Amino acid sequence: MVFDRNEFVQRLTSCRDAMAKRGVDVLVDSDPANMNYLTGYDGWSFYVPQAVVVTLDDDEPLWIGRGVDVGGARLTTYLSDDSIIEWPDHLVDNPDEHPMDFIGAVLAERGHGNAVIGIERDCYFFTPRCRDALKTALPNASFVDTDRLVNWVRLVKSDAEIEVMAQAARVTEGIMAAFFDAVEPGVRECDVIAKVYGAQAGGTTEYGGDYCCVAPMMPTGTGTSAAHLTWSDRRFVKGEAAFLETAGVRHRYHVPMVRTLHLGAPPQRLLDTCKAVVDGIDEAIAAARPGSRCEDVEAAWRRTIARHGVTKKSRIGYSIGIGYPPDWGEHTASLRSGDETVLEENMTFHAVCGIWKDDWGLNISEPIRISKAGGVRFADVPRDLLVKT
Amino acid sequence: MVFDRNEFVQRLTSCRDAMAKRGVDVLVDSDPANMNYLTGYDGWSFYVPQAVVVTLDDDEPLWIGRGVDVGGARLTTYLSDDSIIEWPDHLVDNPDEHPMDFIGAVLAERGHGNAVIGIERDCYFFTPRCRDALKTALPNASFVDTDRLVNWVRLVKSDAEIEVMAQAARVTEGIMAAFFDAVEPGVRECDVIAKVYGAQAGGTTEYGGDYCCVAPMMPTGTGTSAAHLTWSDRRFVKGEAAFLETAGVRHRYHVPMVRTLHLGAPPQRLLDTCKAVVDGIDEAIAAARPGSRCEDVEAAWRRTIARHGVTKKSRIGYSIGIGYPPDWGEHTASLRSGDETVLEENMTFHAVCGIWKDDWGLNISEPIRISKAGGVRFADVPRDLLVKT
Repeated sequence: MVFDRNEFVQRLTSCRDAMAKRGVDVLVDSDPANMNYLTGYDGWSFYVPQAVVVTLDDDEPLWIGRGVDVGGARLTTYLSDDSIIEWPDHLVDNPDEHPMDFIGAVLAERGHGNAVIGIERDCYFFTPRCRDALKTALPNASFVDTDRLVNWVRLVKSDAEIEVMAQAARVTEGIMAAFFDAVEPGVRECDVIAKVYGAQAGGTTEYGGDYCCVAPMMPTGTGTSAAHLTWSDRRFVKGEAAFLETAGVRHRYHVPMVRTLHLGAPPQRLLDTCKAVVDGIDEAIAAARPGSRCEDVEAAWRRTIARHGVTKKSRIGYSIGIGYPPDWGEHTASLRSGDETVLEENMTFHAVCGIWKDDWGLNISEPIRISKAGGVRFADVPRDLLVKT
Repeated sequence: MVFDRNEFVQRLTSCRDAMAKRGVDVLVDSDPANMNYLTGYDGWSFYVPQAVVVTLDDDEPLWIGRGVDVGGARLTTYLSDDSIIEWPDHLVDNPDEHPMDFIGAVLAERGHGNAVIGIERDCYFFTPRCRDALKTALPNASFVDTDRLVNWVRLVKSDAEIEVMAQAARVTEGIMAAFFDAVEPGVRECDVIAKVYGAQAGGTTEYGGDYCCVAPMMPTGTGTSAAHLTWSDRRFVKGEAAFLETAGVRHRYHVPMVRTLHLGAPPQRLLDTCKAVVDGIDEAIAAARPGSRCEDVEAAWRRTIARHGVTKKSRIGYSIGIGYPPDWGEHTASLRSGDETVLEENMTFHAVCGIWKDDWGLNISEPIRISKAGGVRFADVPRDLLVKT
């Protein structure tokens, strides 16, 4: 157990408070990050339907998943065996019967047939068929979309979570150092990624790394005009740039980072854009104080880069914490125009400032924690364009 | 481009044939593996809504995704620029407007307002909100669940696909060798995984590896009683077992494998179970001939292990090929009782034979291709329990 029982009780209380406010009796949540947050559950089983079920009055949440994953639930959650329920294996990839039929039947048996049931209408791994199955199994229940209820509860981190993220940040630093060391003209991209993965899993001598929920993304050359490419067998050549975007991870908590590396003397346009971006991030971080709004942070960035003649239309960051594939973002607060979320201490963000042009780009980011004095960087990695000559 | 244009034309033709048979005019598919199969698209962008749209008569499919991913679509697909459509960035994590609203509007503009639209009701990354948005945008269209239409088209591989999988198998062999070399008493699990990842990305000297869509799973000690655990900082101790389940990957094609390694002389129960499992897999592979049914393969396995006094209730395999998180399975044919899918040459399966007991387990698998003479192993890795003394 990474966190003590009190931490989970606190999380459960916050979740129930949010449910009560929305008039929800029973929450069915299949988001693996939310399942981990509520119970500690950690297994690569989210490719089959599963859920954590929270009611307003049961002592513990229920974990309901595939039989072969019950062992993992016993090992990784704080739940008693009675709260761990398995669905039978013939339901895997079965066109006629679905695991959510089973989960719906469990809810009916437990007396929730007339309840207000909260579901997540837009979360990964909860498909239209999942919702259809629950509605069929519980014809007299009413269903409400809880709009990422648990994700919003996750927004402000506990001190214990911040400590885990600080450990992840040490791994992030090691990854970026490995990246810088490995890139050389003539080296294959895949061999650079091998070193990146090594640093990501190996972590530090004090503690190991966990898997990152996103594959390392490393667009190179003209590929730097694209945001989410991974890598190839290509060999690096002098005079080109590469981004690396990945995260140090500890107990599923992600501290992501992007850096851009240039092999050889960089073109002036890249240096100029970099100066604008670094200034912009500095101003954005300074503006990330408790009481400010998310949109104020983005406005500070936009004002600053405008002075350098640079513009950018996409958001510049989002809340981070626990991550499972496909995304380390929490899908709640965004650093962008129009987001009026008020910052509080111990919220954590990935401020990511990519500039994409037709055939080149620059991408630099900082993972930060909101403190009384403004944003604080989690990781200590050189902030400018990385240049290797 | 990994495959030539003819390969994509052939895939599109097969997809359209399947659509026509079901009376579907327009297919909207958000499964990243299906998007890759139909267009070549490869980017880590499936954490936001996106889709490939296939009609019965347009020259090419449409790719519709986030603006920052258009560069990636241009670089990785065979599509002309006109077939690549971006939705605007303010739709990311926007509670009020959804990317599928936009995609629905594109379909309406293109005259599909009264069409029969095929959607995947149970595919990853197509949420209930996605379906709701399409239905709202296209109130006069009718919607049918296409039940993994493209997944089924993917079931029989082309020779070009088999060649890519053979390359992936070389990577699989390297990964298992790295695993065997790295595990020692006193070594941290995370440091073993660092070597595994290194072999997975680095590949061979001829060609590099691609990312695996599942994190390496390596349950150890009593964790071997659970199916889908990853790893920790724990140090290996003599007298314990570990599974490694992961895949060699090339151009998104996965050749997965599981092996069990024991540190020190193994207990008799493990040796006895291993003999049963290896005999069972051998018989199953021999039974995997064109014309046989999937359930015949499982029956051959079950008969064989029964002679050793071993039973197993879950399925023993599934079709494999292109993989994106969270799963390398194709979600079509399963090697299990009741699956009447008739085997054909160049179908490819992962035959995975895990035996889980209360506090221990054994897991051994083989990736295979169906050939005229029966199943053929993709990878040459010692088939028994790996023992390191």
